[in-house]
Amino acid sequence: MDLSQASQVAYDVLELVGTAAFAASGALLAVRRGYDVVGITVLACATGFGGGMARDVLLGDVPPVAFTDLRYLAVAVATAAVIVVWHPPPVLTRYPLNFADAIGLGLFCVTGAVKAWQFGLGPVPATLLGLTTAIGGGMIRDILGGRSPSVLRDDEEIYAVPALLGAATTAVLLYLDLFTVVTGTLAALGAIGLRLLALRFRWRAPRARGRPSAE
Amino acid sequence: MDLSQASQVAYDVLELVGTAAFAASGALLAVRRGYDVVGITVLACATGFGGGMARDVLLGDVPPVAFTDLRYLAVAVATAAVIVVWHPPPVLTRYPLNFADAIGLGLFCVTGAVKAWQFGLGPVPATLLGLTTAIGGGMIRDILGGRSPSVLRDDEEIYAVPALLGAATTAVLLYLDLFTVVTGTLAALGAIGLRLLALRFRWRAPRARGRPSAE
Amino acid sequence: MDLSQASQVAYDVLELVGTAAFAASGALLAVRRGYDVVGITVLACATGFGGGMARDVLLGDVPPVAFTDLRYLAVAVATAAVIVVWHPPPVLTRYPLNFADAIGLGLFCVTGAVKAWQFGLGPVPATLLGLTTAIGGGMIRDILGGRSPSVLRDDEEIYAVPALLGAATTAVLLYLDLFTVVTGTLAALGAIGLRLLALRFRWRAPRARGRPSAE
Repeated sequence: MDLSQASQVAYDVLELVGTAAFAASGALLAVRRGYDVVGITVLACATGFGGGMARDVLLGDVPPVAFTDLRYLAVAVATAAVIVVWHPPPVLTRYPLNFADAIGLGLFCVTGAVKAWQFGLGPVPATLLGLTTAIGGGMIRDILGGRSPSVLRDDEEIYAVPALLGAATTAVLLYLDLFTVVTGTLAALGAIGLRLLALRFRWRAPRARGRPSAE
Repeated sequence: MDLSQASQVAYDVLELVGTAAFAASGALLAVRRGYDVVGITVLACATGFGGGMARDVLLGDVPPVAFTDLRYLAVAVATAAVIVVWHPPPVLTRYPLNFADAIGLGLFCVTGAVKAWQFGLGPVPATLLGLTTAIGGGMIRDILGGRSPSVLRDDEEIYAVPALLGAATTAVLLYLDLFTVVTGTLAALGAIGLRLLALRFRWRAPRARGRPSAE
Repeated sequence: MDLSQASQVAYDVLELVGTAAFAASGALLAVRRGYDVVGITVLACATGFGGGMARDVLLGDVPPVAFTDLRYLAVAVATAAVIVVWHPPPVLTRYPLNFADAIGLGLFCVTGAVKAWQFGLGPVPATLLGLTTAIGGGMIRDILGGRSPSVLRDDEEIYAVPALLGAATTAVLLYLDLFTVVTGTLAALGAIGLRLLALRFRWRAPRARGRPSAE
């Protein structure tokens, strides 16, 4: 399916906003850890591009768009610069970090599924690739930042589930030829909202059967 | 070399059993760490697909087969579901985890070398790629699960050596045109057996010269 | 731009010396951690090839040259063997490790940018890919070796900046058609020298505004 030009513009906007959101989450974690400005910039870029680069490599679209379309670099570096000069004190960064991360998560699960669809993948593979794009950047951020990936942590609210639902919704919309700027944005907002609600109301996934809380 | 249809079926079976074995090892580590069901499923998939995805990306066979052939996903998710409802208590998971890991290791060193050979690589590169496929999934599991990769740990029995021997045996068999369902299975069983014997009899590789045990 | 044959020989020499330098840094870290000879060899290879493999995958040059050109494997394994039998005691490895790492950093930022240029990327993407190649091997080493990537650490002298400058210089030289064996070597030496000076004089990048030293 060729996306119309309006959809392409919307896709680009979602991608760049998602990059800024993830870059902010990476930069905030770096500030929290006391990294210097170079470390902040590198972690912002790795988080902002990481999921999309994984997606592009898995799709064979190399070099990844983050290396050739310099708007991505500009957005990530500018975001890092903003965070360097203006950021909450470390004790208060948990909420902004989670908020930026939720926006990146919701936007990338949609754009990842769209790009996979454009490369000819079916609905289920496109959903998987959307999920990978969405959780990839955060996993790279957490591994580089020296903490367990939040997608896996047991003390965490549901994270992969909103991304999976957003990607699946996008794939179904594409399959039914109902994907438009509006429905795509709604899918992203749904995923973002679900993640924020999960954070607000502490929705957690169950553990394995018979496993009490502590080890 | 084109593999006969029988070989292709055998290849698929070895791949899917290896995926189940590594997925089980990832899920068991996740249970041990107290992750929730989403974390267990993600770690099962990352461990089950990780080595094969690395292999496919390195060979340029993208999107990786794990994204397009949904049997891999089904096997990994089903394995995770089984582990969620039925698993040994954490103090007892060490042995099943090592056993599942050994099976995945032995199967993937063979299938990795076979796939590299089918893509036209020579015996030495095919051996290296078989080794990468075999140890990749476990390395991804350990990094995501927050422990040093067992392939590197100094308190560990030999791990990479059985995979290297299994992959090299497969490459030699392919080179000599002696690779069949039977010889391939024997190569995998040899690697699995060697790893299990190493665990049983605590075979360890020597350290660097002049390094006593503690640092 | 086709590089002349002399340039190609110089490129190969820089690549292999860089591989040896990074392999030595990986092997020294492994010795320091008390890994066995297999772990030392695996970490030497992962560090020696890691950045170049990332570069090749991102450029779509697969299988990566490290898998097909066996000189890379020979160099990394030989370097690991040397470190196994002859290495400073752990308390003294910090300096050799940093020195080997600086050489790998300086050489790979140049060769990474050159290869990206040969694949048709513009100056800015070629700079980014040179940076990725240079810092990639060390990041893989540090993640596998269980420490925070030195490129990010706040207690570290500037690391990414010399690589960025070396890669950018190379890209400008290529753009101006001034890249030769001599100018390329000078760019590499400049990056190496800058990193060593940064280590010697403790040049550090500033932190984010308003962040005192400790958290």
